[in-house]
Amino acid sequence: MTIFAPDLQGASRAMAVLAAGAPGRAWPADVRLAAPPRPRVAVPRELPGLDAEWAAAFGAAVRALAESGAEIVEIDLDPFLAAARLLYDGALVAERYAAVGEFVDSRPDAVDPTVRAIISPAGELEAHRLIADRNRLTQLRATAMTRLEGIDALMVPTAPEHPTIVDVAADPIGVNSRMGTYTNFCNLFDLCAVAVPAGTAGPAHFGVTVLARAFEDAVAADIAGMVSGCVAEGWSAAAAPSVELAVFGAHLLGQPLEHQLTSLGARWLGPVWTAPTYRLTALDTVPRKPGLIRVADGGVSIAGEKWLLSPAALGRFLAELPTPMQLGAVEFDDGSWGTGFGCDHAASARGRDISEYGGWKAALAAGALA
Amino acid sequence: MTIFAPDLQGASRAMAVLAAGAPGRAWPADVRLAAPPRPRVAVPRELPGLDAEWAAAFGAAVRALAESGAEIVEIDLDPFLAAARLLYDGALVAERYAAVGEFVDSRPDAVDPTVRAIISPAGELEAHRLIADRNRLTQLRATAMTRLEGIDALMVPTAPEHPTIVDVAADPIGVNSRMGTYTNFCNLFDLCAVAVPAGTAGPAHFGVTVLARAFEDAVAADIAGMVSGCVAEGWSAAAAPSVELAVFGAHLLGQPLEHQLTSLGARWLGPVWTAPTYRLTALDTVPRKPGLIRVADGGVSIAGEKWLLSPAALGRFLAELPTPMQLGAVEFDDGSWGTGFGCDHAASARGRDISEYGGWKAALAAGALA
Repeated sequence: MTIFAPDLQGASRAMAVLAAGAPGRAWPADVRLAAPPRPRVAVPRELPGLDAEWAAAFGAAVRALAESGAEIVEIDLDPFLAAARLLYDGALVAERYAAVGEFVDSRPDAVDPTVRAIISPAGELEAHRLIADRNRLTQLRATAMTRLEGIDALMVPTAPEHPTIVDVAADPIGVNSRMGTYTNFCNLFDLCAVAVPAGTAGPAHFGVTVLARAFEDAVAADIAGMVSGCVAEGWSAAAAPSVELAVFGAHLLGQPLEHQLTSLGARWLGPVWTAPTYRLTALDTVPRKPGLIRVADGGVSIAGEKWLLSPAALGRFLAELPTPMQLGAVEFDDGSWGTGFGCDHAASARGRDISEYGGWKAALAAGALA
Repeated sequence: MTIFAPDLQGASRAMAVLAAGAPGRAWPADVRLAAPPRPRVAVPRELPGLDAEWAAAFGAAVRALAESGAEIVEIDLDPFLAAARLLYDGALVAERYAAVGEFVDSRPDAVDPTVRAIISPAGELEAHRLIADRNRLTQLRATAMTRLEGIDALMVPTAPEHPTIVDVAADPIGVNSRMGTYTNFCNLFDLCAVAVPAGTAGPAHFGVTVLARAFEDAVAADIAGMVSGCVAEGWSAAAAPSVELAVFGAHLLGQPLEHQLTSLGARWLGPVWTAPTYRLTALDTVPRKPGLIRVADGGVSIAGEKWLLSPAALGRFLAELPTPMQLGAVEFDDGSWGTGFGCDHAASARGRDISEYGGWKAALAAGALA
């Protein structure tokens, strides 16, 4: 399924609506809901089909992405390109015949001659050749996924050139095949992708595609936003099963343990405040952490932040949580409850009360923890 | 992959060893690690291919399963049986040609004539027919999975009859096709299965197969154990990613909230005791719960129980956990730490100390909570 939209926000909204009505596959319980703050993005070492001007445009997009905080990793794109070629050069095209072959054969005049020339002969392809090509595809995908280990996304040129209508008329299959160089492997490898504008190549508009693993649409959207400036929350962040976690100290944005959440694919949602029924104490931990304690009398509202994460990410985070930290229901200033940090009774009793600052960042800023 | 073993424990161990060396598919982060205490098990409404004696043997196995605590649900097996027929009657047999067709065609005398008669013609099958059959299979699977909604496993006869060698020689394809009636849909539908002995049908040994969704091998093994008495921990419980949770009150085996864990696929591991640094208080909650509190002085060892569950199950459990309960690291009597229950500071301060009983079940037995 491909969506064309004037901006990333609109594409994301359309995708959410379309996907909500589709039976589809179940979401993995550990899906990542955001790109990490410093994503590792693969780019092709070679750029087949791009002339010097187009290659320079891609180079500029890569520099823009690096400048906005991504770590760039050059990879060999061969297994991706080989899979893209399989789409039309091999037996996979029999899928087109299975879908519309009967119509093409019975109403040849109703079909574009080039399309007919691709689909009609595919009716003769043998099943064992299709199986062999699919096995080859499985091998190519395994190799390609090995290349992407430890990498958040792959960025490629969306197209290698802009053919004219005359070019296409002269060699329709050749031009379309070249146009699919950086596109055709996406569905075959079960990837998701976001294509965005990225400057110009001479007089031509240029664009890049950010590809991520299936279900990681939010990761692809975040990275596409970094390169293009067209920021939008990937639709999967709203659609996938997720839970929230309120944090009050070392896991706040920019604090020492933020990475424990971002490495689990957590998405930062924004600030929150507890109901005025809590006290905050500075614990004797490394790194320094506060303990949030609910009290019967004399409580205040404490500032924190909320993260969105997958159920499995929350389970893994809890399983690694060291004493004296605990997680449980916290009451917010709007009367709602959600999962958030608390701490062990005995440890908090030994801590120094810093509630007067209203939150950990304010206490840090005031030098109260020096 | 099929494993033949003298008992369920041996089969489970062999499967764990074989699966550990296979690249395979990633485990889902929410895989269930046990059958619930009262599983819902589907059985076929009709039993094609079974004579009265064999049907009676299956009926006895169903009664044994019901008596050991399962809830039996009769379903229409048609989509399963239709898929089983597709395996050899349709174009899927081209997979056999893709695997060994070249050898069969080049060395016809080296191959059993019946096998050759199945595989050799499959080289002529057209790819679009294979695609159509796979699409049909996808539809049948969707229908079949709808039948299994809310159901933990499907139990069927392993085979409908015991043919003699003379029977097979007289009609090899017909007999083998009948033998696959209750088997051939398993891989096609991406199910796992455990077959166990289940009494006799007249003079013949009889057996049943328990099928569960992919990765739910532990669910299938638990239910196969209920019907056969050959108890073994399903290999997936040890192989899948999992986390442990120590409980000390309402989530103990047989207590009112045990179902919150079993409905998430949690597996009961056994008793545990905390380090002698805790106090237990009776909280003012519905249902009644204890609060486990770590103390600097005057602690005792408190009895609890451990559950094994998927990371997503732990995350979902935490996200639903009501105040004043909290989860965090608990120290055990062997000096190790693991995730377990704690509780909110203020709530525990209001509770009544019941540490002298050494645990919640002992306090209940002593009438201390009346």
